[in-house]
Amino acid sequence: MEYAKMDKAALSAALNDAKKAYEAYKAEGLKLNMARGIPSTAQINLSQDMMDCMKDISDYKGNDGTDYRTYVGKIFDGAPEAKAFFADAYCVPADYIIVGGNSSLNMMYDTVARAMLYGVVGSERPWCKEEVIKFLCPSPGYDRHFKVTQSLGCELITIDMTDEGPDMDTVEKLVAEDPAIRGIWCVPKYSNPTGVTFSDETCRRLASMKTAAPDFRIFWDNAYGVHDLYEEQSNCDIFALSREYGNEDRIFYFASTSKITFPGAGVAFMAASPANLKQIRSVITMQTIGYDKINMLRHVKYLKDAEGVRAHMRRHADILRPKFDCVLNTFERELGGLGIASWGNPRGGYFISLDVADGCAKRVFNLMSEAGITLTDVGATYPYGKDPHDRNLRIAPSYPTVEELQKAIDVLCVCVKLAAAEKYLEA
Amino acid sequence: MEYAKMDKAALSAALNDAKKAYEAYKAEGLKLNMARGIPSTAQINLSQDMMDCMKDISDYKGNDGTDYRTYVGKIFDGAPEAKAFFADAYCVPADYIIVGGNSSLNMMYDTVARAMLYGVVGSERPWCKEEVIKFLCPSPGYDRHFKVTQSLGCELITIDMTDEGPDMDTVEKLVAEDPAIRGIWCVPKYSNPTGVTFSDETCRRLASMKTAAPDFRIFWDNAYGVHDLYEEQSNCDIFALSREYGNEDRIFYFASTSKITFPGAGVAFMAASPANLKQIRSVITMQTIGYDKINMLRHVKYLKDAEGVRAHMRRHADILRPKFDCVLNTFERELGGLGIASWGNPRGGYFISLDVADGCAKRVFNLMSEAGITLTDVGATYPYGKDPHDRNLRIAPSYPTVEELQKAIDVLCVCVKLAAAEKYLEA
Repeated sequence: MEYAKMDKAALSAALNDAKKAYEAYKAEGLKLNMARGIPSTAQINLSQDMMDCMKDISDYKGNDGTDYRTYVGKIFDGAPEAKAFFADAYCVPADYIIVGGNSSLNMMYDTVARAMLYGVVGSERPWCKEEVIKFLCPSPGYDRHFKVTQSLGCELITIDMTDEGPDMDTVEKLVAEDPAIRGIWCVPKYSNPTGVTFSDETCRRLASMKTAAPDFRIFWDNAYGVHDLYEEQSNCDIFALSREYGNEDRIFYFASTSKITFPGAGVAFMAASPANLKQIRSVITMQTIGYDKINMLRHVKYLKDAEGVRAHMRRHADILRPKFDCVLNTFERELGGLGIASWGNPRGGYFISLDVADGCAKRVFNLMSEAGITLTDVGATYPYGKDPHDRNLRIAPSYPTVEELQKAIDVLCVCVKLAAAEKYLEA
Repeated sequence: MEYAKMDKAALSAALNDAKKAYEAYKAEGLKLNMARGIPSTAQINLSQDMMDCMKDISDYKGNDGTDYRTYVGKIFDGAPEAKAFFADAYCVPADYIIVGGNSSLNMMYDTVARAMLYGVVGSERPWCKEEVIKFLCPSPGYDRHFKVTQSLGCELITIDMTDEGPDMDTVEKLVAEDPAIRGIWCVPKYSNPTGVTFSDETCRRLASMKTAAPDFRIFWDNAYGVHDLYEEQSNCDIFALSREYGNEDRIFYFASTSKITFPGAGVAFMAASPANLKQIRSVITMQTIGYDKINMLRHVKYLKDAEGVRAHMRRHADILRPKFDCVLNTFERELGGLGIASWGNPRGGYFISLDVADGCAKRVFNLMSEAGITLTDVGATYPYGKDPHDRNLRIAPSYPTVEELQKAIDVLCVCVKLAAAEKYLEA
C-alpha cells in the first residue's frame, strides 16, 4: 500500500517496524563504504595480464618501427596505434582523436581551462574575458563535472534529467536565449548516476539545436561507452549527427579505459572536429612533449581492438551484473508499490540512482551512516552539492561483494521506509 | 691567430681552406639530426629492466598495503613512496612534493595556467585579469619554457646568462621596479643550453631579492639535478635558502625522470611551500582523481633511492661523457684561439652552447643543413625565437654515436670558420 494513502495508525506501525529492523541492523556494527563507483578487486584482477604483455624491446615499437621509449615529438597527440584502437572501440574517426594521459577528467578540466585561457573555435575572446560563462548541468549528474566548471568560475544551471536524457525543451529554450551559456555536460550512455542512455531524439536535438553562443560546446563524456551489463548497445555517432546540421565543432568527446583496465593507470582520449583539433593541438604542443606512449601501447597490445574490448567488458559484466540485479530486485521487492521511492533501471555503467521521498535523502544518508554504511554525499549529484528536492541517492554497487551489498541494500530499504514514515506522520 | 687580427689575404686563405673542406664534407651526403637533446638508444636500454620489476600483484601495493591499481583519492597528489623517493634523490622535503604524470613541462605549463586562472598565494587577482604579466627569461635558455609563458600571454624579457647564472644585477633591478614581472625561468644545474650551474651567490640573490610583485615566482626547473657527467655535484637547497629570507613561497620546483628512465614515460614532480601546496592541491583535486601510481611505483621499485639513482646516472654518464669530451676537445683543437667562437664547459646535463661570431649563427645553421646536419633552430634559445646577436647554437651531443658526432662537429667547426671568414672579409 502507498504510504500517501495510509492512515496514522498504519504509518505508525510502518515506522515501528522500520525502527525495529533498523536497530537490529545497527547492532550488527556494519562497516561499508559505498561512496564511490570503483571496480572491485576481482574486476581489477581481470586486467593484470596486461602488465606482462610487453615482453621484448620490439614490443615497445610502433607499427612503423619507431621506438616509443623516448620522445617522439610528431605524435605528441597520441600514438597512432592508440588512436586506431579507440576509433574502433568507440566508433569515432581516428583522425579526430587526441590520446592523453591517464585521466579523461584531466582532459575535460584542461579543455574548459583552455577555453577560459584561449577561447574555442568561434569564440570572440577567451572565456575568462567574458563577464560570465554559464554551463548546463543535467542533474542528477556527475559531481566532478560540475566541480570542474565551478572551479573555473562558471555559473552552473541545473537541468532535469528525464528517462531520455536532459530535459531538451528547457535546454533548447535556454541555449537559444542566453549567449552566456557556453556548454552542457553530457554522459550519453548509462549516465552517472541515473543509468539513462540518451534517446536518439535527445541526441538529434542536442546536435541540431540553435544556440545563441557561436562557441557553444557539448562535453560528451562517454565514460561508459563500452560498459554494457546486459545486452550490448552501440554508441551514438554524435559526430555524424552534428555534422548533418553543420554543428560538428560543437562536440568535445571524452572517454578512457579507467573502468576497463586500471582506474588511475589507464589511457584517456578526447575527440573533436578537425577545426577544433587544430586549435587544441596548437595549445597542447606547448603543454607537453607527449603523453605516456608506453602505456598506450600496453593497452593496445592487450585489448587489441573493439572485439577485444567487448570480450573484456563481458568479463567485467559477469562480475557486476549480479550486483546490479541484487540492488534492483531488492528495491522492487522492498520498495515497490509504496510510492516512497523510484529508481532507474540501468543496463550498464556503474550506478543506480534512487529517488526517495522529497526531503528525505539527508535523513536516509544519516541513518545509513549511523548504521556504518557510507553512501555518496547527498547533493553531490547536483550543482553546488545541493539537491533542491533532497531526494536523490547515488548507489555504487561495484565495490562490495554481493553479500555485503545485499546487506547494505536491505538496510537502505529499511532506512527509506523509516524516513518516509516519519515524513508522512509529520505531515 | 685571431681572425680579427688577420689581413685580407690571410682571411681569404682561411675562407678558401674552409670552403674546400666544407665541399668535401658536403659531397659525403651526410644525414644527421642533432636538433633535440634526447638520450641514445643505449641510454634508453639502461632502464629496460624497470619494465619487468613488477612481478606479483603484491608489487602493486603501497607500503601500507593499499592497492595502487585503482583510484586512491587520498593520494591524488602522488604516492607517498614516490614522494619519499624524489625527496631523497633531490634533497627536497617530502611533504613539499606533488608527484604528477609523465611530464614536468606539463606541470610547469599547468602551474602558469593555474596562476592565470586563479592567481597564486599572494596574488590580488588571477593573473589573466592583469593588463600584462611579464616573465624574465635568462638566455640562451630552454625554448619550451619561453613558449609556455608566451602561449599563455606573458611578455618575455631577455636576461643575459653569465657563467654564474642569470645576470643578477639586471634581474634584481627589474624585479624591484616592475610589479608586472611575476616570474623567472631557471634551470639551476647544468642549464639548458649553457651547462652553467648557478653559483651559490646567484642562488642566494634569487632567494633574497626584493620584488615589487608580492606574488613573484621562481620556476626552478631542476631538469638535470642528478645528471652529472664528471664529478657528482650536490643540489642547492633552494627552499632552505629562500626560507632564510622569508621568501619560501617564491619557489616552484620541478624535475622528472624523463632523462633518467624513459623520456615521455617517466614520472614528474613539483615541490612548493606548504602555503603554495595548499592552494595548488585545491585546484589539482578538481582536475584529476590522481596521476599514474603504477608508473610511480615502478620507478621507485627500480631506482629505489638517491644512491640507486646515482648508480643509474653513472651508467648514463659513461655513455654520454665521451660524447661531451669529443665535442669539447674538437672545439678546443679547431676553434681555440681564433676569437670566432666561445663555448661552455658543462660538467653535466644534455647540451653544449656554442657562441659563434655575432651575426653568423644563421649562416652556420644553413651551411650545416646543406651538408645534411640538422641543428637546433637558431634563435630557439631566446624568447620569441630571436637571438638578438644571431650567435648562439645549441649542440645536443647525446643521440648520435661518437663517430657520427665527431664527423658532425668537424663539419661544424669548418662552417664556423667559413662563416667567420666571410664576415671579416665583408667588414
